[in-house]
Amino acid sequence: MKRAEVRQLQAWLDGVDRFNATPGEGTTRGVYTPEDVAARDYVKKEMEQLGLTVSQDPMGNLFGELPGTDPELAPVWTGSHIDTVPNGGKFDGLAGVFAGMEALRLIKESGLPHRRTLSVNVYSGEEMSRFGICCIGSRALTGRLKAEDLQERRSPEGQSIYDAIKDCGYEVDSFDEAYPHKKEIYASLELHIEQNSKLEKAGLPLGIVTGICAPTNLSVVVKGVQTHAGGTSMADRRDAFMAAAEMAAELERLARESKSAYITGTVGHVEVLPNAANVIPGEVRFTVDIRSVSAEDKDELYQALRKAYDNIASRRGVSVEITLLNHDKPLLCDEAICRLLREKAAALAVPCMDIVSGPYHDSLLLGDLTKVGMLFVPSRDGISHDRNEWTDTADIARGTDVLAETMLALANEL
Amino acid sequence: MKRAEVRQLQAWLDGVDRFNATPGEGTTRGVYTPEDVAARDYVKKEMEQLGLTVSQDPMGNLFGELPGTDPELAPVWTGSHIDTVPNGGKFDGLAGVFAGMEALRLIKESGLPHRRTLSVNVYSGEEMSRFGICCIGSRALTGRLKAEDLQERRSPEGQSIYDAIKDCGYEVDSFDEAYPHKKEIYASLELHIEQNSKLEKAGLPLGIVTGICAPTNLSVVVKGVQTHAGGTSMADRRDAFMAAAEMAAELERLARESKSAYITGTVGHVEVLPNAANVIPGEVRFTVDIRSVSAEDKDELYQALRKAYDNIASRRGVSVEITLLNHDKPLLCDEAICRLLREKAAALAVPCMDIVSGPYHDSLLLGDLTKVGMLFVPSRDGISHDRNEWTDTADIARGTDVLAETMLALANEL
Repeated sequence: MKRAEVRQLQAWLDGVDRFNATPGEGTTRGVYTPEDVAARDYVKKEMEQLGLTVSQDPMGNLFGELPGTDPELAPVWTGSHIDTVPNGGKFDGLAGVFAGMEALRLIKESGLPHRRTLSVNVYSGEEMSRFGICCIGSRALTGRLKAEDLQERRSPEGQSIYDAIKDCGYEVDSFDEAYPHKKEIYASLELHIEQNSKLEKAGLPLGIVTGICAPTNLSVVVKGVQTHAGGTSMADRRDAFMAAAEMAAELERLARESKSAYITGTVGHVEVLPNAANVIPGEVRFTVDIRSVSAEDKDELYQALRKAYDNIASRRGVSVEITLLNHDKPLLCDEAICRLLREKAAALAVPCMDIVSGPYHDSLLLGDLTKVGMLFVPSRDGISHDRNEWTDTADIARGTDVLAETMLALANEL
Repeated sequence: MKRAEVRQLQAWLDGVDRFNATPGEGTTRGVYTPEDVAARDYVKKEMEQLGLTVSQDPMGNLFGELPGTDPELAPVWTGSHIDTVPNGGKFDGLAGVFAGMEALRLIKESGLPHRRTLSVNVYSGEEMSRFGICCIGSRALTGRLKAEDLQERRSPEGQSIYDAIKDCGYEVDSFDEAYPHKKEIYASLELHIEQNSKLEKAGLPLGIVTGICAPTNLSVVVKGVQTHAGGTSMADRRDAFMAAAEMAAELERLARESKSAYITGTVGHVEVLPNAANVIPGEVRFTVDIRSVSAEDKDELYQALRKAYDNIASRRGVSVEITLLNHDKPLLCDEAICRLLREKAAALAVPCMDIVSGPYHDSLLLGDLTKVGMLFVPSRDGISHDRNEWTDTADIARGTDVLAETMLALANEL
């Protein structure tokens, strides 16, 4: 098999980055926005040009298949996502989609036989940002996203997922027939940027992911008493923001002091009402994101947090309402696939190390359906979800070589 | 002199409340918005109907004069404001404007002689909200607002104060000739709602204000590193929001532990970037509002806060930039005016108590020009800057009686 072409990967990365709501201010491509639909159409056309058989399901998930010689066998999947956070980067998700397309191109052009069908997929809406729930495309495939979620979950503009998909022209009314995914899948691989600096610090171009942390996401609403900043003494005020600030600090303390091997706590979204300099905030809404490779550690922190938030609220005379948005289970990657990835990397002389994924990925959900493997390529300075996110295309190409060899091997396993 | 009419005060309160950008969601009337201009036109017309001589200055400040028998003598002023915070109440400022108009009506109709001219004034933009600076109308009168401030200070939409005034059709180009106010003023009185619950708790309808706390306002920008919520370990992250939360808590701690007789610290406005649930905030902008009746205590807290913020930032590996927006000096009210107010209240059988004002008022600025007195009427539950702000019109009427008698007495002092 030939090696992956940097020029081809670069052309796709540049080609898709035109579909961006904030040019010059990082990449913004929320799921089911016009930018997302246009990017998906672009990827579809590029898949067709590679000679793949393209289909799209009710969530808009894209599948580009290269049929195997034994179509009765369960297929081997790879894929990732093309949506981004607001003002994010141009590699998160994209690297994996194009690595998958390039891998299938290399396998096809090599003429080497593969019994199982190979498929490169684009999963809809991996990022949390627009509908308050992550991985909606892959979540639907597992059956964890329900038809009622499509109605209930809404974008900041108040649009339901259902209406957003409908507006894209996808066949959302076939949701119940399509999910959970009915056909067996043999294995699923995903190449992704690391979004951390462990590979860079170790000076290695490739990470073999052994486990994926899963997020627990909370929405917290604190209600105090809105009044004039100068009119209420410190003792008399019920300041919703001071309560929220203490709650954020408590999350940080619990995460820092946890004995877990890897656990994080983040307050990423904060909304203060009425948000005027001389008014004591009457209400604060914020999000909590907790991640760990250990379901037990994560649950322990979550329970401790609930208790602490109730205590803070009652001591301060404010109310707190905590909504559990998702409480996903972490995933261990398949050991045999990890071994195979290490062997192929060694054969290609690509030095690598084992690594744990802090961020979630579509693979976390796909673990419900099949055995999973993941490859990480380095992120410069560990920066992600930011316009300064950067990965060398040469590193994506090296990861693509390992991906292609591994997919070919899996496609001939019985 | 007759007593103030509740029906008249109520008619004015209801009349002006039609000019509101958020009906049903509290009162929103930012300075120089169409609602503010319409409200000002309404007040102007009502002043003319009372037979007052109405004029307007380059900031849009309104003056409704009742000429005295000795026009060479310095006049006695009263007044307040008609702008509101977003989703605020219908009494803050308004109560004082209409109490002043009603006082002048009573004095005029009584036919009692007054040597000094009496004037009821509406000062533009007392609230901080739109241009990041409070009391712009009365501040201009003192000369503390400069022509360059009109260009530099901008609304959230990016409009300068100058352009906003120009759009209202006021004579802003005469700013330099008009300010600082050139004519002597004998005294200035202001009736205002308390915005606290001390009068209510004491069961008293009137407070004689002995001093006004002044605000120190800061704008704080914290810059960290924006990256993926799951990708960066707790030890490696430079989370701008966690730093800001600690800074808010530090303000609360310093204010609570200060030995000052009255000091408050508030974070009212918070902006998190990029504000997505799964992204570690890269930047947080927030406001700090510090108030005290003691300039020394306020300065001590401000200095301690600066030091603490620098320490927090350097310990967390984030940057902090603190801009001092204003650092106004608190004001002691004129003792002779306080005595006169107490005497008039006693003569009218209106029970009252001495009280300190936590919030600033236009009177704080007018203290630069003349001796100042203030009257407080009760706020239900101490709530202000909120749609639930409430003051009984009967209490405003009783305060108006004391205001009218005191103005008449001052107008005949030599």
